[in-house]
Amino acid sequence: MKTGEEGGEDKEVVSLETLSKKMDDFAKARDWEKYHSPRNLLLAMVGEVGELSEIFQWKGEVARGLPDWKEEEKVHLGEELSDVLLYLVRLSHVCGVDLGKAALRKLELNAIKYPVTQTDHSVGEHSSSKSKLKEEN
Amino acid sequence: MKTGEEGGEDKEVVSLETLSKKMDDFAKARDWEKYHSPRNLLLAMVGEVGELSEIFQWKGEVARGLPDWKEEEKVHLGEELSDVLLYLVRLSHVCGVDLGKAALRKLELNAIKYPVTQTDHSVGEHSSSKSKLKEEN
Amino acid sequence: MKTGEEGGEDKEVVSLETLSKKMDDFAKARDWEKYHSPRNLLLAMVGEVGELSEIFQWKGEVARGLPDWKEEEKVHLGEELSDVLLYLVRLSHVCGVDLGKAALRKLELNAIKYPVTQTDHSVGEHSSSKSKLKEEN
Amino acid sequence: MKTGEEGGEDKEVVSLETLSKKMDDFAKARDWEKYHSPRNLLLAMVGEVGELSEIFQWKGEVARGLPDWKEEEKVHLGEELSDVLLYLVRLSHVCGVDLGKAALRKLELNAIKYPVTQTDHSVGEHSSSKSKLKEEN
Repeated sequence: MKTGEEGGEDKEVVSLETLSKKMDDFAKARDWEKYHSPRNLLLAMVGEVGELSEIFQWKGEVARGLPDWKEEEKVHLGEELSDVLLYLVRLSHVCGVDLGKAALRKLELNAIKYPVTQTDHSVGEHSSSKSKLKEEN
Repeated sequence: MKTGEEGGEDKEVVSLETLSKKMDDFAKARDWEKYHSPRNLLLAMVGEVGELSEIFQWKGEVARGLPDWKEEEKVHLGEELSDVLLYLVRLSHVCGVDLGKAALRKLELNAIKYPVTQTDHSVGEHSSSKSKLKEEN
Repeated sequence: MKTGEEGGEDKEVVSLETLSKKMDDFAKARDWEKYHSPRNLLLAMVGEVGELSEIFQWKGEVARGLPDWKEEEKVHLGEELSDVLLYLVRLSHVCGVDLGKAALRKLELNAIKYPVTQTDHSVGEHSSSKSKLKEEN
Repeated sequence: MKTGEEGGEDKEVVSLETLSKKMDDFAKARDWEKYHSPRNLLLAMVGEVGELSEIFQWKGEVARGLPDWKEEEKVHLGEELSDVLLYLVRLSHVCGVDLGKAALRKLELNAIKYPVTQTDHSVGEHSSSKSKLKEEN
């Protein structure tokens, strides 16, 4: 699916459903479904989160847009971000969770929990709002 | 965007671009962009991966489709999967990475790395393909 | 420090203080202290947790004592467990936390939170005890 | 075990063996050994790494010694560092790994891998040593 609307000609609209379907085809073609149990995939995802963290580990604070990064580092970063995403999508699939729908719902819940009219945006406020978000879990 | 093709009437096609745009609007409306540095978002994502892991931690092996889980547990799972996704999408955004495009490219690279014609799909093969990537560490 | 008490002649008593001191000497000798900021070390530790998870990712449920693992896998496991430990010890050090003391105190808090007289040890109980443990955070 | 050598009167030498023994007694007394399979403990540890990350997530770069942190934040940090440690020690125990011995061995391997005589300690060198280990992924 191509669209010229937001980001020029090579901007693609990629849906979670497309990725999930591609992952499913990939696993089926290789007879890898038997390995794709929920906890196997979760641990595989944690492994990829680790690789993503390694990219950032010795860098100190990193500015938005990564102005000082080499092109090859950015490509590597895109790969590790993708690996986390692909396992997350696959994990959701094998758990029977519609990830796109769940994410839209979570955004709505977040909008209710953190209303825009709130005027104090200090770090303290942010942190405590954050921990409030967790208290029911 | 609604589609009736795969999952019936309430199946929504949710793109990474949509989620990224919504997250951006959300952060701007609350003046939270200042907190959204790459490493802050990465650590926030690791926090959510932790909460996701807590759901699975005392369960032993979990079957695909989560046949024995209560509805509220599945809802909670959907929320934690979403939290990981939303921070991942946001992290990609502030790093200037087109996550959807990167994920499609990664799928292509994976297809080359693990060709379908490969006939031995034993666990050993699978593990060792993976661990070979790591064997120097 | 050698002791013959618990595990025979090659059993060593290794203290957290010893490891912390060795890590400090190691970093100083290489002029690496400048990289050892709290968040750098935290991300490095997350990276190692990822590598540890990779060892377990495709294995399904694993029995205690790892009866089916090859010796080289166990050695690799020991290395990854150690990497997590060493960064954890180092992170504690640069944060000024006495990790050994904190761990003994945490064990005491846990003993109060989960008294032995509790008779129902069902998974449900365990999980809910677990989430009770978290509610103040 | 008390020692006055390094940190004054309230400095305790805490060994990994002591912590492992205490964890074992704790689990046995509560009949919790049945939950302590390797992957359950690993996921529990990932959960604690998540809670540790949450402490650091919105703070931007944090200075060594945590000069601006409130006492209660430091206490909380000590608890989360301890939770990671305790599950790591427990995981090692159920896997039959002597963590202290493995950590000392790993320190020796690291000393060989990164000899002190190396004179260039630039960030690039440090990162690339680490990233070279990963470059095929």
